[in-house]
Amino acid sequence: MRKSIATVSLSGTLEEKLNAAAQVGFDGIELFENDLIGCPLTPAQIGRRATEFGLRVELYQPFRDFEGVPDEVLRANLRRAGHKFDVMAQLGVDTILVCSTVSPRAVGDDTLVVDQLGRLAELASAHGMRVAYEALAWGRYVNDYAHAWKLVAAVDHPSLGVCLDSFHILSRGDDPAGIRDIPGEKIFFVQLADAPAMHLDVLQWSRHYRCFPGQGDFDLTGFMAHVLSTGYDGPLSLEVFNDVFRQADADRTATDALRSLVALEESLAARLAPSTSELAARDRVALATIDPPAELAGYSFVEITVDPLAELAAQSLLRGMGFVPAGRHRSKPVQMWRHGDARVLLNRSRPGREEWPRGEAAVCAIAVESADPVRSAARAQALLAPAIPRRYGPGEADLRAVAAPDGTSVFFCRTDAADATSWLADFTIDDEATEHRMLYGVSHVDYVALSQPAFAFDEAALFYRSVFGLRRHDSAEVADPYGLVRGTAVSNEDRGVRLLLTMPALGGGPLPESAGYHHIAFACEDVFAAAMQMRSARLPTLSVPGNYYDDLAARTNLHPATIDTMREFAILYDADDEGGAYFHFFTVMFGRRMFFELVQRGGGYDGYGTPNTAVRTAAQYRQLVLAGVIG
Amino acid sequence: MRKSIATVSLSGTLEEKLNAAAQVGFDGIELFENDLIGCPLTPAQIGRRATEFGLRVELYQPFRDFEGVPDEVLRANLRRAGHKFDVMAQLGVDTILVCSTVSPRAVGDDTLVVDQLGRLAELASAHGMRVAYEALAWGRYVNDYAHAWKLVAAVDHPSLGVCLDSFHILSRGDDPAGIRDIPGEKIFFVQLADAPAMHLDVLQWSRHYRCFPGQGDFDLTGFMAHVLSTGYDGPLSLEVFNDVFRQADADRTATDALRSLVALEESLAARLAPSTSELAARDRVALATIDPPAELAGYSFVEITVDPLAELAAQSLLRGMGFVPAGRHRSKPVQMWRHGDARVLLNRSRPGREEWPRGEAAVCAIAVESADPVRSAARAQALLAPAIPRRYGPGEADLRAVAAPDGTSVFFCRTDAADATSWLADFTIDDEATEHRMLYGVSHVDYVALSQPAFAFDEAALFYRSVFGLRRHDSAEVADPYGLVRGTAVSNEDRGVRLLLTMPALGGGPLPESAGYHHIAFACEDVFAAAMQMRSARLPTLSVPGNYYDDLAARTNLHPATIDTMREFAILYDADDEGGAYFHFFTVMFGRRMFFELVQRGGGYDGYGTPNTAVRTAAQYRQLVLAGVIG
Repeated sequence: MRKSIATVSLSGTLEEKLNAAAQVGFDGIELFENDLIGCPLTPAQIGRRATEFGLRVELYQPFRDFEGVPDEVLRANLRRAGHKFDVMAQLGVDTILVCSTVSPRAVGDDTLVVDQLGRLAELASAHGMRVAYEALAWGRYVNDYAHAWKLVAAVDHPSLGVCLDSFHILSRGDDPAGIRDIPGEKIFFVQLADAPAMHLDVLQWSRHYRCFPGQGDFDLTGFMAHVLSTGYDGPLSLEVFNDVFRQADADRTATDALRSLVALEESLAARLAPSTSELAARDRVALATIDPPAELAGYSFVEITVDPLAELAAQSLLRGMGFVPAGRHRSKPVQMWRHGDARVLLNRSRPGREEWPRGEAAVCAIAVESADPVRSAARAQALLAPAIPRRYGPGEADLRAVAAPDGTSVFFCRTDAADATSWLADFTIDDEATEHRMLYGVSHVDYVALSQPAFAFDEAALFYRSVFGLRRHDSAEVADPYGLVRGTAVSNEDRGVRLLLTMPALGGGPLPESAGYHHIAFACEDVFAAAMQMRSARLPTLSVPGNYYDDLAARTNLHPATIDTMREFAILYDADDEGGAYFHFFTVMFGRRMFFELVQRGGGYDGYGTPNTAVRTAAQYRQLVLAGVIG
Repeated sequence: MRKSIATVSLSGTLEEKLNAAAQVGFDGIELFENDLIGCPLTPAQIGRRATEFGLRVELYQPFRDFEGVPDEVLRANLRRAGHKFDVMAQLGVDTILVCSTVSPRAVGDDTLVVDQLGRLAELASAHGMRVAYEALAWGRYVNDYAHAWKLVAAVDHPSLGVCLDSFHILSRGDDPAGIRDIPGEKIFFVQLADAPAMHLDVLQWSRHYRCFPGQGDFDLTGFMAHVLSTGYDGPLSLEVFNDVFRQADADRTATDALRSLVALEESLAARLAPSTSELAARDRVALATIDPPAELAGYSFVEITVDPLAELAAQSLLRGMGFVPAGRHRSKPVQMWRHGDARVLLNRSRPGREEWPRGEAAVCAIAVESADPVRSAARAQALLAPAIPRRYGPGEADLRAVAAPDGTSVFFCRTDAADATSWLADFTIDDEATEHRMLYGVSHVDYVALSQPAFAFDEAALFYRSVFGLRRHDSAEVADPYGLVRGTAVSNEDRGVRLLLTMPALGGGPLPESAGYHHIAFACEDVFAAAMQMRSARLPTLSVPGNYYDDLAARTNLHPATIDTMREFAILYDADDEGGAYFHFFTVMFGRRMFFELVQRGGGYDGYGTPNTAVRTAAQYRQLVLAGVIG
């Protein structure tokens, strides 16, 4: 299907918007009137610019408050429309969006509206134009698509059709199945926007919180299945009003936008398969196809960029948790540490390290164990993830990697020493080292927590979910001492790959200290034994206030002796309502923003210990203040 | 009245919160349990710390999901309460907040709840504690204060009373007049929060958007009048959950918070005057009194900090608008420019100018013409505005000035050359200069527009309104090419003092270009003449795209010849629904973020030309790009 985006969804001047949409590969745009009015180019110049960029101007929008008016206002409105048709002719666009009126002076008389829309259609026809009439969710009289269609059907003019906007339909809870009753050729335009479920005034919700398909809670796949069943074969066009996108880099937003449409087409192709008539619809509109996600069996490794100071700290902590140095990269300053199937790479080769503050550390790469790394990488690239060009020496594996929006490198791997394509081939392996010190059963990476900049969160979540084939799993807001931090967990079906994405609730200002934290949680059979082991190795774990344990005693049935042990070893606890329990503790921080967690899940506990996060972040802040790093 | 603030309303560790509340002059705090749990100090240590700071711990909160439960849960809940009473004894606080249950496992049986609250009251009594029961607006069964009071009255135990929270009551639209039916001694606590009117899920609204009294849309004065009529004489306590305050500097938030209570007490004293019984209430609780605002007759001057480059540009523009240099400061590098009653000071003495980028300019001071400058300044200081210490030489006026939260100096002045206390005494006046070149009637400063950092907006608006005695007047959101900018106008009754405060809708990221703009609008009798005059002086005004005028022709009845003239001279137009019209144009920018506007109001137009702001900001962005300043 042709893919289009409304200029209002991108930041910048009109020229920058056209450039961004073209660069990333959109086929067309909806031209938002304010972008035209603010632009010193003439309409004809803008039209030529779009053509040069290979962009079709699919729609001119919006035209407001046309119908249901007294005669003299109708005359003024038709004059206004005539002016706009002239502008459109210069632009080279043939369809205008007319929104149902919100004017307090309009009247809700369908007969009158049918007559007036008919006159508009006549005028449009005389100019060689088409009118797409849309029911705004907050329209004064016409606020649902069935009503808009009823009026358009009554006018019965070839220059008048409907525009269907997923937000206006789904935000009201209207059943989109009725779309099937509209002939495809009378659907002049389809606008797509997702949105998070919110109990908010629909106008505010629409103006500030729309997002790209897959970033909200609407079933846009189902919506589009209805649309396609009508025979509609026009563009899929994104019309997203979003405070963040208005402020974000236009190229980046355009990439995010197009990715959402590729992912939507994929799910649409899957949804349309069952019935023959829908298969026909699928064939007709030529949905893009991409490789399905390969099965992911967990994390192959997690790589941390360290400067020499942070490396020393990381090594001590890893050693204290029973990890052993298990290999060295053949050509790079990268050391592999291993415990069970948990592998951590410490990488000292960060480029541009002159700007890297002393003692810093951060997760720079995650690698997932893929049943088919080549397919995984091809899928990622089809989803607009830039491939990372790799240089590799003789005997080194041709690893498949792409860059995530947050800058993290994402590798698709196989971990099998016997396989020449395994990433392990890049390392000289210390076989002996791998055989000892697995004292208390760290078995694998349980999850990785990556912080995201405030404005890149939806983009990152959509990226990881679509590229890996993960599902949203858990969301929460946690109070850091200096601000609210939002977290969303995404994971695959068997929870082998769990990823926790966090971001500050507000951008700007002095961000919460924890807004930039990364951490790796290791699954462990017995965190009590692990904590004791670390204590005996004199490795510091994060202090937890006594008040936390007093509260635990007040509100749980944990045995007092258990609480005493937890208090001594700074072990935290969470439980769910179905008997699941989570015992965990944290190492101290290293490299200003990294730490490890050891976790023990019991009884099917499927969360991330979120109720303890505020206690953790307060303690971490105090650690950094005491260390003189901040404050 | 004693003034208190909940620790959850301030950022930082508990120690920082106590420190901030004490520094600014609060009498007490509500201790939020999570602040205790995250703190390594013992409860006794925290209690001592508060005492050392002169703070009373007024309330421990919250205790959740106590009532309407099966027996075994009740036992667990009483055990939990017992633990908390022990902690409270160590803290030195005697009142706990119990919120109405939200548990899906609770039952809504008033008889059961009365029995269980009675048992809690008994237990509290045995510990020397009091329970303040509060109806959460989203409580499962008990969600309005009348219901909470009915239950408390039925228990009839001296250790059980109600907590009244303005948000929970006013957010539901409940009539607060019923508070008068509650005996004052049964109101154990009063929590105050304001909030902007929003159609949002009440829980989300409460958790993220509460604000201090006077910053939202609730009538807290009326609410408190009801409360005081009962004989309540406990603290006024602010419980404000707000994403911004969580992230802001605690000292600054505490100042803002206390200012809101001072302003509330002022309006409360005025509200209570009419009836004798209410006068009695006013006397009993000893409301703080502050000087009422003096009458303000307009702007005495606006002062702009300029570096030498920006000064040249500002001088050219002022000269082009008919201003003349009318005086020099006796001891500072400050030049006065004048046209009619509009006076602009250009100040080259900005401290720390080594950090001031080349070519910059910004409004650094506004001066209002006060009927009583001493009283105005005293009022400002009573509202916690820091006085600006002034050094003045012989023959110079002792000007009264305070600092606004945004750093702007605010002067209270008299402009009268015959008066020794007039600020004019600081200047050597060029009498001749003032007599000529008033060609097209610039008469006075129409309004000043000051940008605010994203997080200081509510604070700034409350500051200017309370200090000057202004009212909120107009609000709008405008799309800059790089993000949304919110504007709120405040003004006095006769519109002599109009102030437009703007801020980016989102903090952080690459802010909209216009997020830091300041400008001064001058009232002018004939903007057409002024624009022609500027053209003949070859002074550039801001370019306006031709598309703007095509749209104007389409949607207005302006005469084509008028539109042609406007197009030629880049004059913009707005109109209201009552025949008011606004013609205006802008100078080009100078100093990266400053410009002037000439405005002509007709027919009672009372706005700020906001529909044209997007066109202006797009044009300004293009001007800066062309100048190579950005891009």
